[in-house]
Amino acid sequence: MLEKIDHLGIAVHSIAEARKFYEEILGLTCEKEEEVVSQKVRTAFFVLGETHIELLEPTTDDSPIAKFLSSRGEGLHHVAYRSTNVEEQLEQARENGCKLIHETPFTGAGNKQVAFLHPKSSHGLLTEFCSGAQK
Amino acid sequence: MLEKIDHLGIAVHSIAEARKFYEEILGLTCEKEEEVVSQKVRTAFFVLGETHIELLEPTTDDSPIAKFLSSRGEGLHHVAYRSTNVEEQLEQARENGCKLIHETPFTGAGNKQVAFLHPKSSHGLLTEFCSGAQK
Repeated sequence: MLEKIDHLGIAVHSIAEARKFYEEILGLTCEKEEEVVSQKVRTAFFVLGETHIELLEPTTDDSPIAKFLSSRGEGLHHVAYRSTNVEEQLEQARENGCKLIHETPFTGAGNKQVAFLHPKSSHGLLTEFCSGAQK
Repeated sequence: MLEKIDHLGIAVHSIAEARKFYEEILGLTCEKEEEVVSQKVRTAFFVLGETHIELLEPTTDDSPIAKFLSSRGEGLHHVAYRSTNVEEQLEQARENGCKLIHETPFTGAGNKQVAFLHPKSSHGLLTEFCSGAQK
């Protein structure tokens, strides 16, 4: 069962540049900024109500986010939904004919269990399910 | 000041088709479905935690959502942030050099006060501020 939107993942060319929008215009506070080497991205998290905004800046030219930026430009990369149980959520998706990127969850940032659906099965929105530790 | 994400506006070709994903795979419940004649869209709202997901289907070929779909395909159309005061929020954006689509708020669906920032000023995400009545 989904509980809430855990975060919006937003691809940007430069966190240093995009932070100005989120801080000065939206008035949000950056909670943390960190590099995720395995995903070839730098991230910055902003809290808003029960959810987070996660800026994603590529750290290498072959980062998935670099590829996204070159084909789509800056904008929403994925929506992450917090589930009570990612495995059950994936099973429900699979039973309903949904194409999955990950057949089983993996451990992502913040020690969460994470898996993605394919955007072809989710009407154009790359969809993440997550559960467990952190936030 | 922003309080929360009010809703995600998601452009789809067919609400009847996209509802299956939100109901059967995400397990959400459609709260209401209605046509907004002035915007040339049909909408369907799903509650999730403190926020909503709003599906947007064009009702005419010259609907802004029809144009979005033909250039970008299905996916996120806008993020709406609930503010304590839309006019102050717009003023803060203007003072920080942000390009606005609406210089003053207008009354939108659910009797909310609504205004949009230009995506060129908001790193690719069409951004709505809203405040007041309903939800």
